[in-house]
Amino acid sequence: MSAYALNRRDLDFLVFDWLRIEDLLDRPRFADHSRETLSSMLDLSETLARDLFQPAYKKSDQVEPWMDADGVHVIPEIAAAVHEHAASGLMAGAFDHDLGGLQAPLTAATASVACLMGANLSAAGFGMLTMANARLIATFGTPTQVQTFAAPQLTGEATGTMCLSEPQAGSSLADITTLADADGEDALGRRFRLRGTKMWISGADHDVTGNIVHLVLAKTPGPDGRPLPGVKGISLFIVPKTLPDGERNDAVVTGLNHKMGYRGIPNCVVAFGDGFAKPEGRPGAVGYLVGEVGQGLAQMFQMMNEARINVGLGAAMMAYRGYRQSLGYAQERLQGRAGGSATPTPIADHPDVRFMLMTQKTYAEGALALTLYCARLLDEEQTGPTPESARRLLDLLTPIAKTWPSEQGLIANDLAIQIHGGYGYTRDFDVEQVYRDNRLNPIHEGTTGIQAIDLLGRKLARDEGALADLLTRIAATSAKARTGDLADCADALDQVWSRLSDHARSIASPLSPQALFGATQALRAWGHGVVAWLWLDLALTASEGPQDDFNEGKRAACRFFFTYELPRIGLWLDAAGAGDTTTLTLPMEAF
Amino acid sequence: MSAYALNRRDLDFLVFDWLRIEDLLDRPRFADHSRETLSSMLDLSETLARDLFQPAYKKSDQVEPWMDADGVHVIPEIAAAVHEHAASGLMAGAFDHDLGGLQAPLTAATASVACLMGANLSAAGFGMLTMANARLIATFGTPTQVQTFAAPQLTGEATGTMCLSEPQAGSSLADITTLADADGEDALGRRFRLRGTKMWISGADHDVTGNIVHLVLAKTPGPDGRPLPGVKGISLFIVPKTLPDGERNDAVVTGLNHKMGYRGIPNCVVAFGDGFAKPEGRPGAVGYLVGEVGQGLAQMFQMMNEARINVGLGAAMMAYRGYRQSLGYAQERLQGRAGGSATPTPIADHPDVRFMLMTQKTYAEGALALTLYCARLLDEEQTGPTPESARRLLDLLTPIAKTWPSEQGLIANDLAIQIHGGYGYTRDFDVEQVYRDNRLNPIHEGTTGIQAIDLLGRKLARDEGALADLLTRIAATSAKARTGDLADCADALDQVWSRLSDHARSIASPLSPQALFGATQALRAWGHGVVAWLWLDLALTASEGPQDDFNEGKRAACRFFFTYELPRIGLWLDAAGAGDTTTLTLPMEAF
Repeated sequence: MSAYALNRRDLDFLVFDWLRIEDLLDRPRFADHSRETLSSMLDLSETLARDLFQPAYKKSDQVEPWMDADGVHVIPEIAAAVHEHAASGLMAGAFDHDLGGLQAPLTAATASVACLMGANLSAAGFGMLTMANARLIATFGTPTQVQTFAAPQLTGEATGTMCLSEPQAGSSLADITTLADADGEDALGRRFRLRGTKMWISGADHDVTGNIVHLVLAKTPGPDGRPLPGVKGISLFIVPKTLPDGERNDAVVTGLNHKMGYRGIPNCVVAFGDGFAKPEGRPGAVGYLVGEVGQGLAQMFQMMNEARINVGLGAAMMAYRGYRQSLGYAQERLQGRAGGSATPTPIADHPDVRFMLMTQKTYAEGALALTLYCARLLDEEQTGPTPESARRLLDLLTPIAKTWPSEQGLIANDLAIQIHGGYGYTRDFDVEQVYRDNRLNPIHEGTTGIQAIDLLGRKLARDEGALADLLTRIAATSAKARTGDLADCADALDQVWSRLSDHARSIASPLSPQALFGATQALRAWGHGVVAWLWLDLALTASEGPQDDFNEGKRAACRFFFTYELPRIGLWLDAAGAGDTTTLTLPMEAF
Repeated sequence: MSAYALNRRDLDFLVFDWLRIEDLLDRPRFADHSRETLSSMLDLSETLARDLFQPAYKKSDQVEPWMDADGVHVIPEIAAAVHEHAASGLMAGAFDHDLGGLQAPLTAATASVACLMGANLSAAGFGMLTMANARLIATFGTPTQVQTFAAPQLTGEATGTMCLSEPQAGSSLADITTLADADGEDALGRRFRLRGTKMWISGADHDVTGNIVHLVLAKTPGPDGRPLPGVKGISLFIVPKTLPDGERNDAVVTGLNHKMGYRGIPNCVVAFGDGFAKPEGRPGAVGYLVGEVGQGLAQMFQMMNEARINVGLGAAMMAYRGYRQSLGYAQERLQGRAGGSATPTPIADHPDVRFMLMTQKTYAEGALALTLYCARLLDEEQTGPTPESARRLLDLLTPIAKTWPSEQGLIANDLAIQIHGGYGYTRDFDVEQVYRDNRLNPIHEGTTGIQAIDLLGRKLARDEGALADLLTRIAATSAKARTGDLADCADALDQVWSRLSDHARSIASPLSPQALFGATQALRAWGHGVVAWLWLDLALTASEGPQDDFNEGKRAACRFFFTYELPRIGLWLDAAGAGDTTTLTLPMEAF
């Protein structure tokens, strides 16, 4: 079996050569950083990944989190990995010095977490959720809330969760019924009592840290005492497992979901205000309002968008891991006699295996490039000269950055299993677990179908100029490519983007049933269009580097993507526009 | 959760309306059969599926086969299901009366096993392997061998295995090293002593039946005492776990593979002649030669081809199961407000969910049609007026019937999970297990890559007229469709088959590296082309039936397939012919 290890040069190529992260270092926020400090962050991330996250990979699948009278438990190896991640400073890498962070560029912090995700995706989930939670509190909370609830997450004393879904309300947050009744005010803000059940909550209880900070969406009652309808009545509350005075809050995990994969982190049903505890003798879990009443969903979308890009990043790293492991296996495993060899040859010599390897490479590395590009846009939003433009472009790309790695990453993982043959179907090898871990990614934080509606109905139909920005960037890549040996790719890219632009103009808001019917096909077309652009851009960067195997591989991957993947865009757009209504109007009995 | 149940009308539609199985009943072999007897077989199959196979589904995943000093064990529910399958007479449904079979058409026997496969694929694997094993012995064995080794399999006293692969020789059977030394002759035939290790052997030990009949490929030594090189030295041996005199044979399972799914049947490493037992005091497992020395691979291909179609059938039924369960779930689960509804609507009303449902329907029912069509060809080969022509067409279709259901079935299963959302990712629902069970199918009995080489390099490049037969049948469907409201589909089908025919003519033997590079893409194109034809044919049958929702659904599925799936054929053929050599010649260091 081929052990997984990141090829560090892949990461350096993306972060330093392609995204030119050193250009950020002139900005005052990053005054303490240099190429050396950022490289050290990645070195340390690799070490943590190798020494703590990777060794727990198999066991975290075999020994699922379990629950007893003391709550939920995870294997000690996971706890050790999360602790060390926090203690290393890497977890808070992008946070302000004031909060104990390293104040590094988000691009570097994202590349750091990518190392851990590749080694153990679900274990890295603790840090990912914790940082997104802390960042939301840091953005919208009062200074006291930040100090009380965000700061302990940065030091590893607490972890964080996001509590949105309920058993009856997954994608449809307007239908949540968790209710928050006003309960006065104290130094931590406006206090409420929450009652309701949240579902699919990762890390909602465990024995990794003493405290857990839940960020909970709930509805305040209207004048009639009933929850306000729709999403406008939704507010955001901080609900800690343990209250600042040490009392146990009434936020209790009542069940664990037994998952197909992604088992290092428990996924929980959480009862708020179910009577397990009555802090200060009153029913309901104590929660502190963040910001204003009714702002919950808007605030939560900061965390949600960060989580979506992290989902894409995790999916990219699972694709990358499967690719690297099947690449190793294909060079070790002898079978058949490729090219008329007299003795058995490595299966990497079989043309079909090469096709599967290169497909994986284009998906895995393309997905990683896409998500790191988004991290770079976050840096532009935070410290760049045109933050608003960076935000708009990031908004446009978020559904793609969430979905493309998730969907294509699974196809890559499927190929990694296939290359391993029967061995890949056994649990002795990693690739079947990699697939199972990754299978969550097209579902959580908004399914692929939800992302498609977001891209078409919200981002493209109500375009605020982001598409023009994107087209300008693509045109710049294309113009540069036209002067060299990738000119044919530039032509192909221009043609594809001409069609995608036409498609964008054809979208009417609200989306018609026919448009909704083909929305996922359209999302695929956009995803491939964006990644084609990125591959051409990557190939240009590779062309500027030393002419070695590594850079030749990037250029070959670009060519492969343009030959074998780009043509699919037209087909998806045809499908998106086919306007078939037969299936839409068919009685269910006919299915 | 939506419990799985077959829609019996789907099966009746395929078997009686479309394949017109009643037309077979004029043939002498089937003199005892009528529509009623065949319907009874299917009724009984449904009962067995519901009462024995289905209840064991979850448990057979949770409690894997285990091994102790007594050998390998499976859960008693599996043993009960296999026993009842044999006792019912259904397992031997297609066998001769002389051997205790029902002498029913293979089409009916295949539809019968499909019922069981949908309920519990891996449990049905016992019967599938056992019947293919018995059929091979019945075809090539001596009367004594048939009586001793095939007959007990038909009554459920023994089960059968196929032992081809070895740890170092999976796809490459030329490299097997199991050696068979001559050891005299007795009433059962020429006796040999086998030594070697077989890998990936399903059902090689268990406590379901007292005896197990292994069919083993091994090499006899050449004049120098060493195994003959290549596939020509391969012979076929019957190696029972227990010899006719009651002595334990030296065929011992030394390890179990721990699989991603498909766990109802143990998958084993088997040591032959490793010294566990020494029958009659001599080393080596006792094996009886089937037919002549050197004929092993050719004989085994009867069993292999049958197994390949059964793999396709199982994959089709997994696709079908996932479809039916997600169809049920989509009608139960309320979420969001499709079409401006004031209250939450079933997710089946969301256009995106309908797209996923209809895609599954076209894959699942198309795959089932394809594999049952192959069973019908087996009946033509066995009892029809032009057996040779049926055999040739079946040979051509076998790699497609094995692969298309396996590959497209997994995509269908992925969509079934997706429709279930977070619930689909939990083990409380069936769909993630369905996916895991099905994931074996593109691997075993020849991977997708192997099937692609078989289709292009063997079946199409050395075409014996099968393609002309196929084109004649397609033209007949197309001509019939042209007279009605499906005329546009007929035109599209003709165009596609014109391109596929061009592709067939372009294939040079032996396949070039470029052709091998794109072979899997070509196989996909051929698969979609064949299934498009079948869908049009199904729609024509539906048009001739009552104009109800059921038949309307078949016609809608045909239209959907032609709108959204047919166009992919051109793209795959483009990819197959792209002739890219960059990836082929790239140094491994560049990957």
